[in-house]
Amino acid sequence: MDSMLDDRFVLDDSSAVGLSEQFGTPLYVVSEAAFRARLRRYREAFSAAYPATRLSYASKANSILTILRIAYEEGYDVDVASEGELRAALLAGIPASHCHLHGNAKAERELDFALEQAIGEILVDNFRELDRLVSRDLGATKLMLRLAPGVDPKTHRAISTGQADTKFGFNIADGSGERAVRICLDNKLPLHGFHCHVGSQLLDPEAQRAGGAQIASFAIEMEQKHGFVADLLNVGGGLGVRYLADYQPMQAAEYCQLIVEAVLTHLGDRRPTLAQEPGRSMIAEAGVTLYRVEVIKEVPTIQGRKRYVVVDGGLSDNPRSAMYEAKYEVRAIASGETSLATVSGKHCETDTLFADIHLPTNLAEGDLLQVLCTGAYNASMASNYNRFPRPACVLVGLDGHAKVIQKRETWDEVFSSQVPPG
Amino acid sequence: MDSMLDDRFVLDDSSAVGLSEQFGTPLYVVSEAAFRARLRRYREAFSAAYPATRLSYASKANSILTILRIAYEEGYDVDVASEGELRAALLAGIPASHCHLHGNAKAERELDFALEQAIGEILVDNFRELDRLVSRDLGATKLMLRLAPGVDPKTHRAISTGQADTKFGFNIADGSGERAVRICLDNKLPLHGFHCHVGSQLLDPEAQRAGGAQIASFAIEMEQKHGFVADLLNVGGGLGVRYLADYQPMQAAEYCQLIVEAVLTHLGDRRPTLAQEPGRSMIAEAGVTLYRVEVIKEVPTIQGRKRYVVVDGGLSDNPRSAMYEAKYEVRAIASGETSLATVSGKHCETDTLFADIHLPTNLAEGDLLQVLCTGAYNASMASNYNRFPRPACVLVGLDGHAKVIQKRETWDEVFSSQVPPG
Repeated sequence: MDSMLDDRFVLDDSSAVGLSEQFGTPLYVVSEAAFRARLRRYREAFSAAYPATRLSYASKANSILTILRIAYEEGYDVDVASEGELRAALLAGIPASHCHLHGNAKAERELDFALEQAIGEILVDNFRELDRLVSRDLGATKLMLRLAPGVDPKTHRAISTGQADTKFGFNIADGSGERAVRICLDNKLPLHGFHCHVGSQLLDPEAQRAGGAQIASFAIEMEQKHGFVADLLNVGGGLGVRYLADYQPMQAAEYCQLIVEAVLTHLGDRRPTLAQEPGRSMIAEAGVTLYRVEVIKEVPTIQGRKRYVVVDGGLSDNPRSAMYEAKYEVRAIASGETSLATVSGKHCETDTLFADIHLPTNLAEGDLLQVLCTGAYNASMASNYNRFPRPACVLVGLDGHAKVIQKRETWDEVFSSQVPPG
Repeated sequence: MDSMLDDRFVLDDSSAVGLSEQFGTPLYVVSEAAFRARLRRYREAFSAAYPATRLSYASKANSILTILRIAYEEGYDVDVASEGELRAALLAGIPASHCHLHGNAKAERELDFALEQAIGEILVDNFRELDRLVSRDLGATKLMLRLAPGVDPKTHRAISTGQADTKFGFNIADGSGERAVRICLDNKLPLHGFHCHVGSQLLDPEAQRAGGAQIASFAIEMEQKHGFVADLLNVGGGLGVRYLADYQPMQAAEYCQLIVEAVLTHLGDRRPTLAQEPGRSMIAEAGVTLYRVEVIKEVPTIQGRKRYVVVDGGLSDNPRSAMYEAKYEVRAIASGETSLATVSGKHCETDTLFADIHLPTNLAEGDLLQVLCTGAYNASMASNYNRFPRPACVLVGLDGHAKVIQKRETWDEVFSSQVPPG
């Protein structure tokens, strides 16, 4: 069902037509084969680079239950960043012991819930959280300290999280990281190691290399100064994906090799378990979105005529264009000569989805468009703006059959939290 | 309950504490008095400027059912931009005859549903929609043509909609507007007039003046050329609000006067009904959001120390900061000396809500923050990113008592569209 184009999942024309007729549009479509292939490739690459590894799937990228389940089946733990994401993992049948809890502002009730469930690890972000944990029975739950390594990655500022100027983690440079380690040791907390994450959608590996070096150096320093031996170092995620065909993120093998080398170089003869938590790089390229063209309009501009192609979705199902100026590749079923067009959504504002892209000149109202690489941060960030029901998501299984893994919202669901007036 | 500061709604400290304890945080709070005052002031200003007026509330700004109901009680029709917004109005007990349907890409089923409900008006955006309407029984529903007047407003590009280069409406300059009028006349469609909307959050009235002039000139031209007499001209909405205290939008009286003059100057002796559809300017300043501070962190930067104040919400409950670089005024209950801080949300990305604002130096973890002017486009654009349940909204009634008008989402609701794996 899925033809391969530079490896990103894309539906062939007849499948796209079939799914749109069966399930309606807008429609998220995920390929089980493409998702599993990425999960396996990354796991194999990491294991090949280093014997003791652990991988977690960053569920914020896409926390549809079946997606979480597949990641777990492929040997991944689940990285959750909230009580809700932990609940998603549990609903997907994943034991809490295989989950770890992130969050730069975990609420009391989130910590309580995570500990009640006996979550595998909590990644402690700040001193307030550490204070709260000191007084609790942690049971079998281990702690990791999230560090701010002071690395400035080259990516969109909204998704760069590892520089010193960040809300995340204990700063290394100002001594906060060391202070946190001492609190853990003084209170005999079950500290197992350190975590850092330098940013998302990284196309340049230097930030990851620097982040790996810093976390390793910090671990060795803590051993020398305080006798603490880390048995787990988690270097986060961040590998970029091909939103456009000419984006050239590193291959998994090369990337894992780089991460491992960056860490080992500064680790002396210590050989802790190394962990990563990829999200986007697992699921983004495995998903597409189908839209139907509602309206095509040519309007006069100072430069001449401009073609607007308006689809039956918009920023409610893909807020990344409006929020991050994200680019995407859009395919039409119509073929032949192309010319520039701007694809807009149907929300009652400008709602530009894909500006100045090439689409067939003979594209017609009623045609389908397929947007590649929308498996990550589309379903998970979707809203009901303008009271649009959120789209369904179907999984194209290994047998080629499609099944619904997230139902299209009903009107009852859209209004479920409303209180009747009066 | 609401003290007045330059007229925007703000909770006094004890009310803020009381509501946060009773209903939890994050919490949207709307003042019925502030909302009704704006609705009345605008209605009176418009009536004073012109005898035959009609006002509609633009429901996309905030379509909580009780909000819609209050607007209707104050003599407003409801501007809906989708089937879902029409359903919201109907659920709020508002007759369809008092609604009108916008949308630049109305689906067949949206037109069908609107006509089944005998909606008051459909604002036709494009030729495909007009084609669909020609073959339908319109019953009592009237048609308006949405025009693109070719005015370039000074506002954020994402919310400017009246320039010639736009996905919205029939272009006047290239003859599309006139062609649409002729199709209506040739097919004896119940055309009643024209609509234009030049943009949102306008702080400079020139765009509205130009838009009013263009729609009036177009109406007169259509009368002269085709004998069509418009009995309704709708000039949209767009009046700005005080997100910050130093924003100086026009007063309603001055604004309505300007709109009316701009239109009348070009109308000869014709005196059609004039309509407007304010949304943001009615509800934004009537609402606040309460957050609790989870974490305060000082980090070293190149410039020195920087203070991060992390709250228990984020871009899921207010996406406007990330999407439009929107500014807001934030109040703390703590008082005394202030210094710069950046308020971040708790989502697992940078999630900057309010950058470089002044907050008390003695602000502490656990304190409350109140964000002004969040009544519009916060609840309506909220998402479940990171599986956060969407906040409740309470209305502070005319009697000073608070009641829930939108319930905090339950976990069952957060996962209602998920299909169990396997």
